[in-house]
Amino acid sequence: MPRSVLAHREAVVELLSGLPGARGSERVPLPEALGRALAVDVHAPLDLPPFPNSQMDGYAVRSADIPDGGAELRVAAPVPAGAAPEPLQPGDAAPIMTGAMIPDGADAVVPIEKAQPDTFPAPGAETRVTLPATEPGSFVRDAGSDIARGALALAAGTVLGPAQLGLLAALGLTAAEVRRPLRVLLVTTGDEVVEPGQELRPGKIYDSNGILLETAMTQAGLAVLRTGISDDAPAALLRLLRGHADSVDLIVTTGGVSKGAYEVVRQAMDGQPVEFLSVAMQPGGPQGIGTFDGVPFLGFPGNPVSCLVSFEMFLRPALAAVLGAPALRPAPLARLAEPLASPAGKHQVRRGALQAGGTVRLVGGAGSHLMHALALSDVLVQVPADVTELPAGAEVEVWML
Amino acid sequence: MPRSVLAHREAVVELLSGLPGARGSERVPLPEALGRALAVDVHAPLDLPPFPNSQMDGYAVRSADIPDGGAELRVAAPVPAGAAPEPLQPGDAAPIMTGAMIPDGADAVVPIEKAQPDTFPAPGAETRVTLPATEPGSFVRDAGSDIARGALALAAGTVLGPAQLGLLAALGLTAAEVRRPLRVLLVTTGDEVVEPGQELRPGKIYDSNGILLETAMTQAGLAVLRTGISDDAPAALLRLLRGHADSVDLIVTTGGVSKGAYEVVRQAMDGQPVEFLSVAMQPGGPQGIGTFDGVPFLGFPGNPVSCLVSFEMFLRPALAAVLGAPALRPAPLARLAEPLASPAGKHQVRRGALQAGGTVRLVGGAGSHLMHALALSDVLVQVPADVTELPAGAEVEVWML
Repeated sequence: MPRSVLAHREAVVELLSGLPGARGSERVPLPEALGRALAVDVHAPLDLPPFPNSQMDGYAVRSADIPDGGAELRVAAPVPAGAAPEPLQPGDAAPIMTGAMIPDGADAVVPIEKAQPDTFPAPGAETRVTLPATEPGSFVRDAGSDIARGALALAAGTVLGPAQLGLLAALGLTAAEVRRPLRVLLVTTGDEVVEPGQELRPGKIYDSNGILLETAMTQAGLAVLRTGISDDAPAALLRLLRGHADSVDLIVTTGGVSKGAYEVVRQAMDGQPVEFLSVAMQPGGPQGIGTFDGVPFLGFPGNPVSCLVSFEMFLRPALAAVLGAPALRPAPLARLAEPLASPAGKHQVRRGALQAGGTVRLVGGAGSHLMHALALSDVLVQVPADVTELPAGAEVEVWML
Repeated sequence: MPRSVLAHREAVVELLSGLPGARGSERVPLPEALGRALAVDVHAPLDLPPFPNSQMDGYAVRSADIPDGGAELRVAAPVPAGAAPEPLQPGDAAPIMTGAMIPDGADAVVPIEKAQPDTFPAPGAETRVTLPATEPGSFVRDAGSDIARGALALAAGTVLGPAQLGLLAALGLTAAEVRRPLRVLLVTTGDEVVEPGQELRPGKIYDSNGILLETAMTQAGLAVLRTGISDDAPAALLRLLRGHADSVDLIVTTGGVSKGAYEVVRQAMDGQPVEFLSVAMQPGGPQGIGTFDGVPFLGFPGNPVSCLVSFEMFLRPALAAVLGAPALRPAPLARLAEPLASPAGKHQVRRGALQAGGTVRLVGGAGSHLMHALALSDVLVQVPADVTELPAGAEVEVWML
């Protein structure tokens, strides 16, 4: 019986569960923290906003000064953004700009559009304004209404994008404590595989798994150690793994895990607690999982599309589950632009391109060798194991690449 | 009349339409090209796959050798992946591994599961195998079936992610010609704004727009020049802009564009062909657009959430339209976890967090000052201008952050 996608993902989570914090953390300036994961919870050192401020350009008033029918008030000195205003005297209305501090005594803002006259007087002019009644608190952003001092701002593990860095800056912070990346040894295998740039002899193909997984892992926050391609000699692969195993947190290989006659990874793992199994998934069914000399090990299949699907379906979500980072791929919905068929009992992962209006067009067929199709896709279309046919227009879950 | 979101986006596209290629291109090794945009079309220098190969572990055969009832064939020397096999003799079946080259003469592969016996013989053994009839071409991946030599592999402007770099490597390439980034001058303004790390006096707030837009623009492939915060003195802002305008391709300011009494950007742009207008959008309504001393200029509102929404709704898609990069934000669908209300005649952009199963939870209210809410979001929920209410469960377009 092949293992379900979910069961294998849980097995990868279990395998990686000893990893958190293995490499410690470092403090970096905010611009350099882009894409890194927070090492610690960050609590707000101050209220946001730091003081009650106006949500509109208008007049700051004491709401009790204005009866239901409205009232004419004396215009006080204006409050620009950035100023620390004088307290508001009873019977006064202070011109106030968006974001400016509400003066002591004021408890509401009347937008300028509702004032008569509906433009601000020239500074220094002694004048009056007629304003309608207003509820206390109207158009006032209270101190701490975005986040209160001491509250959790961002949890450990949060990946710092522009919005998260913006929040840290708004809190007055200039640096963040981020995790040092986990180290992964990435080995591509196969007698047929040669480095790009070399001569391509008959029967050979260029290695695309290396750069594909290296950059996907880099984007996911891992530090990747590449060692070049291992050919199909188990002894050479063993030497290579032994040479690096104690300096990495995780080993990932590609190829050599299925049931052919020359499966180098299977052979090299002989005597190690590594299981080779079939996951009920298309593509990416053959998988290896275990430890090599005590280091967590994953053996992905050799096909590039299978490799990326394996990474996205198992390693990336397991890292998210165990370390909190990278964040899980968001999984929104789209409508199929065309019907599809999927083998019974297998979770199918198709490549797709999102179109305007929330439809998704399938790119390439189910075949796992279609690298060009993968490069033209921006989502993985998820077809659950119990689904064998879907009509055009059917709603599917899509994982964003 | 406020301008529609679409009309303003078109105006930004028009503003930027002179930019393509302004900074030229450079050649970088593939790992360093991650996230960069291709400067030129790349055509495939070879077929992918480079030769016909087997989709399965099985036997390579001449289909004409096997009548409808099946046949017993002599087992030839096996074909491992990476080898250049001898031609297949009539009446022979050659054990072949997934990805291995189809021998001359063979035109189909019979999967090992359908053979009798259904395991490969030991190498060197003189033996025979019984195979069922098969169609020509079965389980053969033709040369060029993924992409044919000479065909367009990736178009100029394509942003190079793992899959695109994997394709270039599969084509034997080791470097890519990528665009030099456009340079943007980013100036945050406001008397109330101070740099993070400084003392926060009453009425002041920390600048979050700077790092928020700097990193969003960096992710979008721009080279960002920051000059610190300009206060609300128009002469100082003018000096700053004049000092840098001729070394950048685009100027973006934040704040000082609405109708208050102290709008520094409006004042500094006096005499320049810059329009200040209201876009029918919430948040992010007030916008400035034009040229400053001939350099394209965009004036975003001062609020951080409005800033990011302005960037995502206008500048990012305009860059995608004009330069092809960054790629447009994919816009799939999600179902509202809760009802929402939206002002008539305004396109509302709410912040949301995707949940399992394709629902989206709104984070924070419509208010544009909620930086913490933005930092907890992963999508922008789009509510068109003609929609005023949506029930829980309604389908909405979500833009991924």
